[in-house]
Amino acid sequence: MSRIEANPHPFPHDGLSRSTTALVVVDMQRDFLEPEGYFGALGYDPQGCRAALPGAAALLGAARAAGLFVVHTRQGYRPDLMDLPAHKAWRTAHNGAPIGAPGPLGRLLVRDEPGWQIVPELAPIEGEAVIDKSGNGAFYDTDLDTVLRVRGIRHLIVCGITTDCCVHCTIREANDRGYHCLLVSDACGSGDSKAHEAAVYLMTVEGGVLGATATVSDVRAALSAPGLAA
Amino acid sequence: MSRIEANPHPFPHDGLSRSTTALVVVDMQRDFLEPEGYFGALGYDPQGCRAALPGAAALLGAARAAGLFVVHTRQGYRPDLMDLPAHKAWRTAHNGAPIGAPGPLGRLLVRDEPGWQIVPELAPIEGEAVIDKSGNGAFYDTDLDTVLRVRGIRHLIVCGITTDCCVHCTIREANDRGYHCLLVSDACGSGDSKAHEAAVYLMTVEGGVLGATATVSDVRAALSAPGLAA
Amino acid sequence: MSRIEANPHPFPHDGLSRSTTALVVVDMQRDFLEPEGYFGALGYDPQGCRAALPGAAALLGAARAAGLFVVHTRQGYRPDLMDLPAHKAWRTAHNGAPIGAPGPLGRLLVRDEPGWQIVPELAPIEGEAVIDKSGNGAFYDTDLDTVLRVRGIRHLIVCGITTDCCVHCTIREANDRGYHCLLVSDACGSGDSKAHEAAVYLMTVEGGVLGATATVSDVRAALSAPGLAA
Amino acid sequence: MSRIEANPHPFPHDGLSRSTTALVVVDMQRDFLEPEGYFGALGYDPQGCRAALPGAAALLGAARAAGLFVVHTRQGYRPDLMDLPAHKAWRTAHNGAPIGAPGPLGRLLVRDEPGWQIVPELAPIEGEAVIDKSGNGAFYDTDLDTVLRVRGIRHLIVCGITTDCCVHCTIREANDRGYHCLLVSDACGSGDSKAHEAAVYLMTVEGGVLGATATVSDVRAALSAPGLAA
Repeated sequence: MSRIEANPHPFPHDGLSRSTTALVVVDMQRDFLEPEGYFGALGYDPQGCRAALPGAAALLGAARAAGLFVVHTRQGYRPDLMDLPAHKAWRTAHNGAPIGAPGPLGRLLVRDEPGWQIVPELAPIEGEAVIDKSGNGAFYDTDLDTVLRVRGIRHLIVCGITTDCCVHCTIREANDRGYHCLLVSDACGSGDSKAHEAAVYLMTVEGGVLGATATVSDVRAALSAPGLAA
Repeated sequence: MSRIEANPHPFPHDGLSRSTTALVVVDMQRDFLEPEGYFGALGYDPQGCRAALPGAAALLGAARAAGLFVVHTRQGYRPDLMDLPAHKAWRTAHNGAPIGAPGPLGRLLVRDEPGWQIVPELAPIEGEAVIDKSGNGAFYDTDLDTVLRVRGIRHLIVCGITTDCCVHCTIREANDRGYHCLLVSDACGSGDSKAHEAAVYLMTVEGGVLGATATVSDVRAALSAPGLAA
Repeated sequence: MSRIEANPHPFPHDGLSRSTTALVVVDMQRDFLEPEGYFGALGYDPQGCRAALPGAAALLGAARAAGLFVVHTRQGYRPDLMDLPAHKAWRTAHNGAPIGAPGPLGRLLVRDEPGWQIVPELAPIEGEAVIDKSGNGAFYDTDLDTVLRVRGIRHLIVCGITTDCCVHCTIREANDRGYHCLLVSDACGSGDSKAHEAAVYLMTVEGGVLGATATVSDVRAALSAPGLAA
Repeated sequence: MSRIEANPHPFPHDGLSRSTTALVVVDMQRDFLEPEGYFGALGYDPQGCRAALPGAAALLGAARAAGLFVVHTRQGYRPDLMDLPAHKAWRTAHNGAPIGAPGPLGRLLVRDEPGWQIVPELAPIEGEAVIDKSGNGAFYDTDLDTVLRVRGIRHLIVCGITTDCCVHCTIREANDRGYHCLLVSDACGSGDSKAHEAAVYLMTVEGGVLGATATVSDVRAALSAPGLAA
């Protein structure tokens, strides 16, 4: 039985196999990764998020090579903002970067705008799922659970941005739904480096109550080892 | 319009009122707070969680005095463990404290056992909701959203344990569902003090993307101020 | 591959097996089956619902003998009615049988009252799940999906009352969640016989878009045939 | 207080108002309404569904004139069918019209194909919501509940096709979520006229346990009466 040597426990509990494991790449969109996007409007230096790019690209390559199912998530609101709760509208206005306001990459956090696109180096290919969500958690109001269930997926390797917000929200929802989760620390990033560190640390406490964490190198080694189960 | 001076933004966005705000007290159960319970079996010193007790008691008193609706959550599995996902069974066994194993306070994390009880100093009273959950998030597989919606609640003041796990999971689910959330830092606790600090910090980043944080004293001041809206 | 000869298609599509099939017995409670209960207060003759009793008992016996997993659902509101939506409170008051009003079997449709109990001839036994719900659909606000998923159940044989309301609501929710469903017509009943007939008929249209329907005799034959898959 | 005189009780319980009521138009797509679509491939005469067209158009016009919020639902699977549960794939193949198979209006029941389009006479206009769903119920795996909640909608007037399947599934989900529902009988239709009649009848039993039913004329009268509440 092959497993990834993760912290604080090996992943997945019942052995790695191609058919039961998916890679989930969270919100690698221009709005978060380019200086002209939403995070830039909020005053964040994009480098904290961009730090996830090389790791996420390597992980995506390894997952594709190993034949894992791949899911990309993408955050964005309807153009008329009818799915935007009042408190989120207020908060982003209060912070000076209101959802829906115009910017160099189009309207902030709105579907179909340039800023909403996944960055080209991680662009989804045929056979991969793209999950459009307006919430932080990728299970909320989406068909992610259905897509995974139809395929018999039970284990998720998760990377993307931000470690502290959408990556963690998605892992927490998945964990309660019965998916064993692995956060890949050097394929995640955040506009706030201390928040990234905090979110990685939270994967290690209480015996891994939310799952476990490993590095890109750990995951690649396991995915490319001979004898990966079907 | 009255608001609590919270970090990084005031709470709630549209003004504090008795009828739209609930206090949520998360998992203040003997299994987590007493040395003979589940956390003790896992090797945690109970002091990290017990640190939440005085603050939570003060907050509960203030919420009752102000006439807020109060929700208590309670984690526990069915006695036959038919709601226990495989990876959680494996993890807790791997950690030496399997869910369902016998202990001084009864079977670990099982409903109706002594360890599952809410500690006496925070015992629910008539008119308060008790939400039984097996997941970490209090919305998963429960009627919490229905109970809040029936009553017109839109804002949640959240305390309890652990800050990093069930408190954060519940806040993250609530936030996506349209509830503005406030984590009361000194009425929360964790078996791991660094995890507590990390989880409080995560409330403050990205302009308060998950909500905001304040202290018991901040909340009490606002709840007891003259002119709290109905 | 063994299948039940159902209308309009055989059930389940991929073959009957003990480990992937559950029997769901819906709401066989005194409030609906005894003349002093909620349905009686609403003016219904209990015979329409009681017509389901012999079939449901035979089906339950056959499922137990075959080793199927059994789920019982039970409808009832919290004693303080905090989970009762406004329109349901209004409707039942308008109809002269308000949820929560006192009756010979205790408060109407309230948990822990005598009327809320499952009738003795169908009482759950150890190892069977009881799902408490306030909605008509047994998946809404409950852990039913989790319980079925943990066990690998994918096919549901459904009986109980009322055919038109809670049986149909549960089948419709299950069908979207990926469960193939079979309504057992002579183990279902309703206070309104025309509604029962209508609800059975709806299982047969559009090629079985909601599942299929069969009789107790059909199901018993398949469950007791030699060679039922594990 | 204005209400629609419906059967078996007036709608909505607490009075009709523009801001709390939405019109939901279910699945008025070419695949169901044109002879070359999915229903035609299944062998249904489209007239049963087309019977809903004049009523739905009149209702949509009245709702727009009155300023109600309008929701259109649209059924269709992802082009790679990764959201299609196994039993639905099997059933539609068994019935000779497999989801995803080519047809004169494009691949059956697949998003972005010509058959998936809403018919021109009911085309959504700016400010109206379009809910894409793969399930029969419009709440399953969609943001419909969020969209309605953000806007404060509590009452739904529902029309479309088919009365027995997607209209009923949507009403049943809505009803449990606290929305008072009205099925507009002559603005609904089905490939099977007996199923249509059955589904309308089911709205009238048990005191309107799923809501109530009225005609287009009843609804138009109420919507155009002077003094409709804001």
